[in-house]
Amino acid sequence: MQIDRSPLARPFPALPAIAGVTLRVARARYKTWDRCDLTIAELAEGTSAAGVFTKSACASSEVELGREAVKLGRARALVVNAGNSNAFTGWRGRAAVEAIRAQVSGALGCGLDDVFVSSTGVIGVPLPIDKAEAGIAAALNAQPCGWEDAANAIGTTDTFTKGAGAAAMIGPYRVELAGIIKGSGMIAPDMATMLGYVFTDADVAPAFLQEALERANAATFSCITVDGDTSTSDTVMAFATGKAGNPRIENWDSAGADAFAAALTDVCRQLAQLVVRDGEGARKFITIRVSGAASDASARTIGLAIANSPLVKTAIAGEDANWGRVVMAVGKAGEPADRDRLSIAFGGVWAARNGVPVEDYDEAPVAAHLKGEEIDIAVDLGLGDGHAIVWTCDLTHGYIAINADYRS
Amino acid sequence: MQIDRSPLARPFPALPAIAGVTLRVARARYKTWDRCDLTIAELAEGTSAAGVFTKSACASSEVELGREAVKLGRARALVVNAGNSNAFTGWRGRAAVEAIRAQVSGALGCGLDDVFVSSTGVIGVPLPIDKAEAGIAAALNAQPCGWEDAANAIGTTDTFTKGAGAAAMIGPYRVELAGIIKGSGMIAPDMATMLGYVFTDADVAPAFLQEALERANAATFSCITVDGDTSTSDTVMAFATGKAGNPRIENWDSAGADAFAAALTDVCRQLAQLVVRDGEGARKFITIRVSGAASDASARTIGLAIANSPLVKTAIAGEDANWGRVVMAVGKAGEPADRDRLSIAFGGVWAARNGVPVEDYDEAPVAAHLKGEEIDIAVDLGLGDGHAIVWTCDLTHGYIAINADYRS
Repeated sequence: MQIDRSPLARPFPALPAIAGVTLRVARARYKTWDRCDLTIAELAEGTSAAGVFTKSACASSEVELGREAVKLGRARALVVNAGNSNAFTGWRGRAAVEAIRAQVSGALGCGLDDVFVSSTGVIGVPLPIDKAEAGIAAALNAQPCGWEDAANAIGTTDTFTKGAGAAAMIGPYRVELAGIIKGSGMIAPDMATMLGYVFTDADVAPAFLQEALERANAATFSCITVDGDTSTSDTVMAFATGKAGNPRIENWDSAGADAFAAALTDVCRQLAQLVVRDGEGARKFITIRVSGAASDASARTIGLAIANSPLVKTAIAGEDANWGRVVMAVGKAGEPADRDRLSIAFGGVWAARNGVPVEDYDEAPVAAHLKGEEIDIAVDLGLGDGHAIVWTCDLTHGYIAINADYRS
Repeated sequence: MQIDRSPLARPFPALPAIAGVTLRVARARYKTWDRCDLTIAELAEGTSAAGVFTKSACASSEVELGREAVKLGRARALVVNAGNSNAFTGWRGRAAVEAIRAQVSGALGCGLDDVFVSSTGVIGVPLPIDKAEAGIAAALNAQPCGWEDAANAIGTTDTFTKGAGAAAMIGPYRVELAGIIKGSGMIAPDMATMLGYVFTDADVAPAFLQEALERANAATFSCITVDGDTSTSDTVMAFATGKAGNPRIENWDSAGADAFAAALTDVCRQLAQLVVRDGEGARKFITIRVSGAASDASARTIGLAIANSPLVKTAIAGEDANWGRVVMAVGKAGEPADRDRLSIAFGGVWAARNGVPVEDYDEAPVAAHLKGEEIDIAVDLGLGDGHAIVWTCDLTHGYIAINADYRS
């Protein structure tokens, strides 16, 4: 079926080349389509690597091997296959990943553990090794390409191509960050979501890169949801080539550590929000701000309970300021809440305060807000200082149409 | 909007009168409709009561007061208001419930705590006390009615009227059970779901009735889901009038205790399944059998993760034997699972065994099964002896249509 471009789509941004990163794409033809579906990012020697991966108990071999290899903190190549997730394929799936690592490490003269592989697409069909091998050979011989081509090649059901960038000053050194991501359905924030990659020319020690990525992930990818369904292949990785020449960031006391971490979080937030903007069937981008919770973690759980509630999501789709459904979602979250202290606002207008509807509640500005594309829901628990921001989209006929037809 | 009768609907069964229970209905006109929306069940002196209630942190005053009163184990009346849930209405909501209790206890000459009240419908609008009082006065003066009229009067968005019965022998004494229930959306099994009531003429001690109801609930209402959204008003109660004349069932060693508990579970299972059959937009009734899990609780959690996955539910709506989505849901459940021991079947045909697709998998009988109304999914974890059965429905355009328009 033809899926229309999301009305919430954003144009692909201008992203700088990152010294030490060479992108190439090729047609492995994992599906019967005529498009590039295999991407290789070649990384300079000395590149630091960090990654966060799905917590699914049924994770793919790509995730299992990547989770192990990233502990070594270095990378020379990233390979992304689109159209086949290679998940739930047993030993044959693992053999395919190992074959790819062998082929690429041979070509680049690096270790097996320096090659990271991700795959996305249908579950349960072993990745065809012959197609992978031919695709990799073609990619290694291809001309380098830019970010948009690579972002395109890693996509599957995505309706638009997603990238984001940022820069940070480390003393006198300007470092650049560029990221690409794919994802549209099977999006839930049990940590990293879908396939996302951030590249930087900064010189960053692997341990710090991992810590900064985990922090960024907690505030970004872990705070989005489309449908509450966590993929078996979710992966977010960061690669730092060190070509910017800055003094290496070793820890939080290093010069520029905070600036770099902020820039990394910035890119991750942009990428995460782009995934929500391409949520299957999405017509509205919803920001849920939870405050006054017992803790930050509690606030996030409550925010996600609201964001994952089909009744809240359909209410927003119907442009209905149905705060009763928000109350319901708060109540079911399993977190501390006091019905009689709860306040709820849409678009900055409080509909309910301290457990009762606002007396002179004027629904007109709220109705106008709900007709827009960017919806803001604020919930104050009135209990403590915990807060969180969660992003999601509405639940529409488009989601049903896409998922009752497409075999993912 | 006009919502069509569910294609999964069942005719209302013939249910026996229960000695000691007198049903009456009236028009309180909580909404602008011309139908009975207030129900009173008058219960004989000496009736035992038991109840399980929503775990929502934002429960209604009805639930709060009922949860307290049921500890006394006795009841003389049940009042159900339809069209307004009276939830999230602060002190005014509580005042409405207290006014109803005072009026009914005065009329029947019983204690305040002998009167149980439930309300269902829109959240956030205080129940109008004047309408409630007039409705109760009318109901108390009305002719007694039958189960179907009462089941009709407690419904809101239900597309069909739901009841179930069973009988049990306690020595030479035959005892009857009759139950009614309402519910269609905001259905998730954090314990009791929606409003359900079981009446019996058996003589049962309150403590045993409570224990038997909790056991029945755990295997029935706690194993259904429509949309994963837990209502603020969920209530299931059991009332035993003792008019059958059997020797009182005091505990599990009493004569007939097992037979009575089995009959109670039978009625609860029938009622729970009827709610799923009226799931908003439902076109298919799905039974998910989980076996080989680490424990029964783990099996139920995994079953519910599958049942609540929008990707699984839309796959069934699309008649797609997409077991990859089942793998995904197992993986995200947060319970022990080993990808390489997992087996999945549709309609009794194994699609995947021990983590890999079945070699000679014949999709034809599975495709035929998925075209039917009753869908069977079996998941074996291959880890232990834990098992559970969970019931749900598919996710269709009908759910979106109902919930993007109707303000619940």
